[in-house]
Amino acid sequence: MILQLEKNINNIQKEDLISSLGKFTKSVSEVQTQKGFYLVALEKGDVDIREIGHLSGVKDVHVVSDNYQLVSKKWKVNPAEIKLRDGDIISQNHFNIMAGPCSIENEEQVDAVIAHLVENNVKIMRGGVYKPRSSPYSFRGLGMEGLKMWHDKAKAAGIKIITEVMQVSQVEEMYDFIDIYQVGARNTQNFNLLDELGKVDKPVMIKRGVSGTIEELLYSAEYVFSGGNEDLILCERGIRTFENMTRNTLDINAIPVLKDRSHLPVVVDPSHGIGIRKHVEPIALAGIMAGADGVIFELHPNPEKAMSDGQQSLYFEESAAMINKMKKAYELRGELN
Amino acid sequence: MILQLEKNINNIQKEDLISSLGKFTKSVSEVQTQKGFYLVALEKGDVDIREIGHLSGVKDVHVVSDNYQLVSKKWKVNPAEIKLRDGDIISQNHFNIMAGPCSIENEEQVDAVIAHLVENNVKIMRGGVYKPRSSPYSFRGLGMEGLKMWHDKAKAAGIKIITEVMQVSQVEEMYDFIDIYQVGARNTQNFNLLDELGKVDKPVMIKRGVSGTIEELLYSAEYVFSGGNEDLILCERGIRTFENMTRNTLDINAIPVLKDRSHLPVVVDPSHGIGIRKHVEPIALAGIMAGADGVIFELHPNPEKAMSDGQQSLYFEESAAMINKMKKAYELRGELN
Amino acid sequence: MILQLEKNINNIQKEDLISSLGKFTKSVSEVQTQKGFYLVALEKGDVDIREIGHLSGVKDVHVVSDNYQLVSKKWKVNPAEIKLRDGDIISQNHFNIMAGPCSIENEEQVDAVIAHLVENNVKIMRGGVYKPRSSPYSFRGLGMEGLKMWHDKAKAAGIKIITEVMQVSQVEEMYDFIDIYQVGARNTQNFNLLDELGKVDKPVMIKRGVSGTIEELLYSAEYVFSGGNEDLILCERGIRTFENMTRNTLDINAIPVLKDRSHLPVVVDPSHGIGIRKHVEPIALAGIMAGADGVIFELHPNPEKAMSDGQQSLYFEESAAMINKMKKAYELRGELN
Amino acid sequence: MILQLEKNINNIQKEDLISSLGKFTKSVSEVQTQKGFYLVALEKGDVDIREIGHLSGVKDVHVVSDNYQLVSKKWKVNPAEIKLRDGDIISQNHFNIMAGPCSIENEEQVDAVIAHLVENNVKIMRGGVYKPRSSPYSFRGLGMEGLKMWHDKAKAAGIKIITEVMQVSQVEEMYDFIDIYQVGARNTQNFNLLDELGKVDKPVMIKRGVSGTIEELLYSAEYVFSGGNEDLILCERGIRTFENMTRNTLDINAIPVLKDRSHLPVVVDPSHGIGIRKHVEPIALAGIMAGADGVIFELHPNPEKAMSDGQQSLYFEESAAMINKMKKAYELRGELN
Repeated sequence: MILQLEKNINNIQKEDLISSLGKFTKSVSEVQTQKGFYLVALEKGDVDIREIGHLSGVKDVHVVSDNYQLVSKKWKVNPAEIKLRDGDIISQNHFNIMAGPCSIENEEQVDAVIAHLVENNVKIMRGGVYKPRSSPYSFRGLGMEGLKMWHDKAKAAGIKIITEVMQVSQVEEMYDFIDIYQVGARNTQNFNLLDELGKVDKPVMIKRGVSGTIEELLYSAEYVFSGGNEDLILCERGIRTFENMTRNTLDINAIPVLKDRSHLPVVVDPSHGIGIRKHVEPIALAGIMAGADGVIFELHPNPEKAMSDGQQSLYFEESAAMINKMKKAYELRGELN
Repeated sequence: MILQLEKNINNIQKEDLISSLGKFTKSVSEVQTQKGFYLVALEKGDVDIREIGHLSGVKDVHVVSDNYQLVSKKWKVNPAEIKLRDGDIISQNHFNIMAGPCSIENEEQVDAVIAHLVENNVKIMRGGVYKPRSSPYSFRGLGMEGLKMWHDKAKAAGIKIITEVMQVSQVEEMYDFIDIYQVGARNTQNFNLLDELGKVDKPVMIKRGVSGTIEELLYSAEYVFSGGNEDLILCERGIRTFENMTRNTLDINAIPVLKDRSHLPVVVDPSHGIGIRKHVEPIALAGIMAGADGVIFELHPNPEKAMSDGQQSLYFEESAAMINKMKKAYELRGELN
Repeated sequence: MILQLEKNINNIQKEDLISSLGKFTKSVSEVQTQKGFYLVALEKGDVDIREIGHLSGVKDVHVVSDNYQLVSKKWKVNPAEIKLRDGDIISQNHFNIMAGPCSIENEEQVDAVIAHLVENNVKIMRGGVYKPRSSPYSFRGLGMEGLKMWHDKAKAAGIKIITEVMQVSQVEEMYDFIDIYQVGARNTQNFNLLDELGKVDKPVMIKRGVSGTIEELLYSAEYVFSGGNEDLILCERGIRTFENMTRNTLDINAIPVLKDRSHLPVVVDPSHGIGIRKHVEPIALAGIMAGADGVIFELHPNPEKAMSDGQQSLYFEESAAMINKMKKAYELRGELN
Repeated sequence: MILQLEKNINNIQKEDLISSLGKFTKSVSEVQTQKGFYLVALEKGDVDIREIGHLSGVKDVHVVSDNYQLVSKKWKVNPAEIKLRDGDIISQNHFNIMAGPCSIENEEQVDAVIAHLVENNVKIMRGGVYKPRSSPYSFRGLGMEGLKMWHDKAKAAGIKIITEVMQVSQVEEMYDFIDIYQVGARNTQNFNLLDELGKVDKPVMIKRGVSGTIEELLYSAEYVFSGGNEDLILCERGIRTFENMTRNTLDINAIPVLKDRSHLPVVVDPSHGIGIRKHVEPIALAGIMAGADGVIFELHPNPEKAMSDGQQSLYFEESAAMINKMKKAYELRGELN
């Protein structure tokens, strides 16, 4: 059960309210986000919301039958926009593209990618500066120095940055240099990191775990939301199955299911989802028709020389063509609805 | 290695040829289909095809590096059309729809479905008369009596029939009453059945196994082709994974991969792929954008009362709307290529 | 709900009984096996068995809350013995070993294996004469000629035969030459085959499907039992997962779960379960400690030259050593219970 | 390639050595652990170790063909003992038991468990003070206060503590109060945490990821080892598959494979591996026969009232009986080898 509270509720009112709720609930959590003030209560038995709705300080009451609450669509049909700098937004009313290399490698690469994005009117650049790698001997990213270099160039060009944050200490460290935090597929259930991201006022995109269920992804988002941060994006990027002709198995089903269960925007990652350059485009288009609000994909000025994920990174010509096609698919989807 | 032979090759020429091949190959299989005459040879070491190409009776030689051979795209870039009765065809140059109930239940149901298909210009009706069911106590289909009733009505309306064949003895039994045999997901590796289907001159659609790899699906098609039947269709219908919010996990990646590896048409089954009525449409559209040549889906005059799969069968209104949208998505895909 | 009927029940009594059951049940199936006569009824709502137990012709009534019924432990705590020729039995009161090559290849191989089994006091020999193979170009077994040759030699040595039956027509064809039919992992849900095996009076061992659930295995056994054949053995042989360092993932959990759910004996197949010769022994021992009633494994006089599965077939010395160790593990398990 | 260096090697010698290696290698990492000083080099092409072995400061050279190096069995056949306080050790030469509740809940619970362990001669107690939970509203552990309370009681009783560490900052925080750090299944690829654990001189047990491959587990251990900490234990605790009758699928195959690939001790966790109290014992015994060096399991004074994992926690009587049986199984394994 979610209680939306009045903005000007005072402490005495709030404590009275929590105390009044006691008889209906097993637990009550206070949640204060950028956008609202809530009480999330786990109910015991049925609750008659008429007994609660008129309590002082309560703006609205929603009974949510899912175990996740704040990210459920059952209480919030109209999703808010996620605001970035300079008036850019991520929203479910237009098509959101994020593109860039797997890893930030050097100035030349960043310059080339930014020029490509500007030319193709893409506002958000992806790229890793801390890379989770199975082997300790692999390239692990340029770290903060790389991020600062990238940030300066991106800011100058009006491009926003999304990058993976791997641990609690990086949340603050990165804060001034990024626009969206990305939680990677190996950290979807790194609950300390999720808690920490609840405390900041920058958007967070959470990738589905390598073998995470759809429900676990929603719970991970619930962690961040209940920690105080409403500006969340969900990302389907493929799961691990027995099939080995592709890198992962993109779970296309997850897209309509997530859109149906949650009010959060959903982005699809065809690059990791299939892991084979020549097949990225059809998977991106499929993701859009399935209902995705955006696409995140990998590109590189010279994929053959990329320090990571070269096999799934698009050449610039491929990227330009795909962006054009994705827009047409998104338009058609709008017409069909 | 595939050798396409001249049509008028005689036995002496053929035996000379096989004997000449001996030094290059580990094994040679003769394959005579509706459309051609081939030798399929597994090579030992490298073969210089110039030594073979000029042998008497050889029309063309193709070295295929895949383990499957006849179904590989590497020797046949332009796929043939699959001819049905009355001039209807299944082809990669137009959009193929197959729709109908999970099970054939009674005359009223068949009449209603046929009327709906005719109205929406769908040429091929699906329906089960032998149903594979996990429990021996579940409804197992109307059998041959149901098929004959269905066949009479379908034929009168100019509708073609695709239905599942479960065992060798049914291949002949069903022959006069069906247009396309369907091999179900539990029989993808029923090799005796595949062998038998190689001997008939009606098309076969093979569904991917519940936990079959893409490569295993291609091998299963190779069985039927090498048995003598070229008229094959592949069907992606979802695989079994750990995700349990959906019935199966539709492997959208399989569509571009199959189109890339094989010259056979690929059909997507969104009904089994996701198993939830309200999500069938976005998955069907996604399948088309990913490159499917057709869609097979379940509908029912009254899904709530269906004897099987009601939860994933569309109402007629939903079906009509989806057919319309699928055609638009297919058109857009054509424009984007 | 299972009703055990009196042996001498006549048709009129039976029809009266079925008619009396009508008000409690959705469906009633008659099951006549080698060992008993049953009615299996799917109940509607709660049933007061006192209203049924005293009906004429009823020996006993068991309400089984599982969806599978006849194979459930809930009605039959003391499993019967499965009788083979010459007084040999398969039972849960002693340790059952089945061993032999993947494929029957030739007389020399069969002679050598039989000598090894006799020497090590193993009563049952496994071997394939029809081999399910992913590729149509692989070795597919010696067929009936091979089976007859094998049968003659085995019979002379007092060895019993278990071999895979792949299709309905082989059930009768093989009948005179085998002691136990094996349903392979690709045929676990070949329901026509299961129906046919219900009609014969020789034991059937059903392997778990490559990606079959434990419950599906029980349902497959229910098919055969409800078809009339009680002499069933279940076999855990590994499932398909994302792990690719081993051939399959032996589901050790399935052993105690199957023993808990069903009264049927459970055999473990470590050869397919791990697929690596040097690791077969620890997996066999693990299977025994987990509760298996027997072990089926692959061996070969010369594994390096085997026509199939050589990589997981034991040398005779390894087999002899493992048999000895398995017996000691089985003894210890008996002491610990 | 691993070079074991002389203990007294000086900086000049070391730099000379690295420089000499340059022509054979792509990269060289220095690794200084509690027990040794190594250079780990990724080779380019074949290396003639005779050219390296005689270089000044080199004690021994090992070419390791696996991608993981320091955890590979290929250079270290005789595993070292892991020393705990008071002379207790974890070793591959005796049977290691770790037992305790899922979560540390209160003093009474800790007292009761410690008494049970002392009585049954178990030296290491498991228990969580920071609990990773899918939902943010679940009980998340007593934190450091709970750990300190537990530590005082355990120390007084001579019991050692293993507990899960979830993030970098906890490594130092917990240091004085624990004996073994546990990396949980959701953190197996939390690379920052692994790096940090490389810097401490207390043992680390790494659980296999929920859907981690065997190879990924070895790489995770390589992270900690190459960070400087050799005292590592691997734990198989079940993977996520399609089977849903059990909580996870214990991958029994992983045990002989890990023992064959790595010199590190391997512990099996039957509690999470199957997740059903009555089946924990057969799975524990199976794990031992498969080659595990130890068992970690969950127990509780009153499982029905446990705050987490009650369904898989043993009663004390069950625990005592199982400990006794495990010892006998371990003895038998010793005799069979």
